[in-house]
This record gives sequence, C-alpha cells and structure tokens, in this order.
Amino acid sequence: MYPKSFNDLITMFQKLPGVGEKSAQRYAFNILEMSQEDIDEIINSLNNLHKIKKCHICGYLTDEDECLFCKDKERKDETIMVLAFPQDVAAIEKTGSYNGRYHVLNGLISSSKGIFPEDINIQGLLNRINDNTQEIIIATSPTIDGEMTALYLDKILKDKNVLVTRLAHGLPMGASLDYADELTLIKAMNNRRKIKDE
Amino acid sequence: MYPKSFNDLITMFQKLPGVGEKSAQRYAFNILEMSQEDIDEIINSLNNLHKIKKCHICGYLTDEDECLFCKDKERKDETIMVLAFPQDVAAIEKTGSYNGRYHVLNGLISSSKGIFPEDINIQGLLNRINDNTQEIIIATSPTIDGEMTALYLDKILKDKNVLVTRLAHGLPMGASLDYADELTLIKAMNNRRKIKDE
Repeated sequence: MYPKSFNDLITMFQKLPGVGEKSAQRYAFNILEMSQEDIDEIINSLNNLHKIKKCHICGYLTDEDECLFCKDKERKDETIMVLAFPQDVAAIEKTGSYNGRYHVLNGLISSSKGIFPEDINIQGLLNRINDNTQEIIIATSPTIDGEMTALYLDKILKDKNVLVTRLAHGLPMGASLDYADELTLIKAMNNRRKIKDE
Repeated sequence: MYPKSFNDLITMFQKLPGVGEKSAQRYAFNILEMSQEDIDEIINSLNNLHKIKKCHICGYLTDEDECLFCKDKERKDETIMVLAFPQDVAAIEKTGSYNGRYHVLNGLISSSKGIFPEDINIQGLLNRINDNTQEIIIATSPTIDGEMTALYLDKILKDKNVLVTRLAHGLPMGASLDYADELTLIKAMNNRRKIKDE
C-alpha cells in the first residue's frame, strides 16, 4: 500500500525484537521526516558496519585490530572479567569501578539451545591466561545458562594457578525485601556478611 | 565505548519515539547480526527514501507522479474521504469496505501546536471538488484537534454542493459497556438507532 522503499523500511523494523506492525510503521514515518543529513548518517553507519569484528584477544567489538580495552595500557593485566555479551561490558564500564581486562564469550553454554563449550569463546580465554594472570572474575548473569557456563569455567580453570571468583548474588540495592524472589533471598541469606565487612 | 559506526546506529535508534538506551542497543545488536544482504536492502530503501513525496492530488505518499489510489480507475470519484495522516489510509484500507477516493490533510488544525487551516492540505481538497463530487466523509480522529478540524471543514464546505458526513462515534465493537468513557457513552446514546437500521 505504501511506496516500496517505505514498505521495505517497515519490514526491516518489524524484524527487530518486540517491534510490531504499528511501531514499525511509526518508526518508518519518523525516518521519513528526518533531514537528508540524518538519513545519510544512518546510511554511512550501516555501510561501515561490516568493518566491525570481534577483537582477536578478548572477543569484544572493534573496528580496529585490537579493541579499545585491550589497547588501553592503563588497565591491569592481572584481572580478567569474563562476560557473556559485548553489551555486558557497557554495564560494567558504567560503574566506573573496574580497571582490569575483559573477556567476552559471545554466548553462553545452553543445553536448551544446543550451545556447547566449543561454540563460545572459551579457548580464547585459556590462551590468554599466563603468569601475569592472578584473578578471573566470572560475571555471567545468574540465569540457568549463565550459571551452567560459570560452573563449567570454574571446573576447567581449576588446574590453572589463578583465583576464580564470581559476582556476588543477593538483594539488588534499593529493592524491597518482600518483592525479592525466594532464590535471591536464599542466596542473600547464605552469603550474609558481618556489617563491618561491607 | 562501541566502535563509531555502531554507536551512530544506537544514536539513530534512540531518536525514534519511545526507544530508550537499552532498546536502541538491542536493536543495533540485531542489525549487526543481520546478513550483509539484509543490511544492503536497508541501505537501498534508505537511499530511495528521498523519492517519496506527497501525491499532488490527494497528499498521500507516493514515489510516482500520482499515488496508487488516485491512479486506480476502479475507485469511485463521487466520494472523498478526508484523513489526517497517511497511516490512517492504511487503517481504512484494511477494512476492505471503502472504494472511494482519499484526501490526506497531513496534519490537523491545532490551537495548542499553532497549526492553522492554511498549514494543512485543505486548499488541495477544495480544488478537487467538482460536479462529480457527491459526498465528503470527514474521518479525522475524535480528538480535540480532530474535532476542531472536522468542524472547520464542515463550515467551509457548506456552500459547496456536496453532502458532508462524519464517521460515527459510539461504542467500539467488542468493548465492555462499563469500560467505556462517559463521552463515548453519551455519543453512543445520542446516536442510537432502531435495530433494523444497522
């Protein structure tokens, strides 16, 4: 019903997660009303998208040889934080309180999705560990797949001479106790600490 | 934190209505995982977007001289349905029960947004009315701006020799009476009909 290029745009938006017909249409009308300059900028960034690849050291996104975290000489080599996805790096960086290296698995071991250890960037992690490495922080999400991956990593890292830690589970800050689920409450009780430790 | 072209893509998505940082990031990762073929298709449709203009007869979107509704010789010239936006045409077409012409105002008169009659495609409507025209259906939404525009159109069309009608207001089909707002109920009561009329 719409001109073809406009229909194509709607179809593209409908491919995005959680975007239905109405939203896709609304987005397309929004693009149509953008200045030619803005549209050219989008075209330009789409044209450059093929340059983005995974950093050969850590698996994070980069359009250069090494990603900006691996290039950064200020970061400490002693600690490597293992994350499932590139967007998790953004979440940790926002805290501003981590200054070690990252390692992005680009996936999680999943029995339901048929993803095995060799399908994700685990070998790359093993290759990186050297005499400098002191601690590996496993920061996968506390989901079924995230836990399974953490357990697997803990197992294969046992014979390496490094400390393997996992992000703490417990009550999220600002959360109301009576809204927390049972599993979180159990974890929070088991991992309780003396107040002076905090 | 991300490579520039990827960041640009996130920024673009954040410009869309109701898309926050997290969704924009999720959409961008989705695009990144698309095949080069799909991305080329998006680039192509964005490149062709400048060809889309308003039909010089009715104001609907087209990439040709006349839009597909104005070109269509099967549609009846006697009836013109006046709509606020191109997407309203899609809504009416979906019903499959209108076979007249369309006229898209591309806006509504709005005192709050400072949009006056001369800012929307009203002159184009007046120019279209000829001896063939029998009925003009004003199908603007029953909002403040939509009502105001309908009243204005009704006034200026009075001295033309055409029947001016307005879409009926009332209970939406399948709706529960006790969830209807007062204004809709009042409209539904005032516009009640004999059952055989339906």
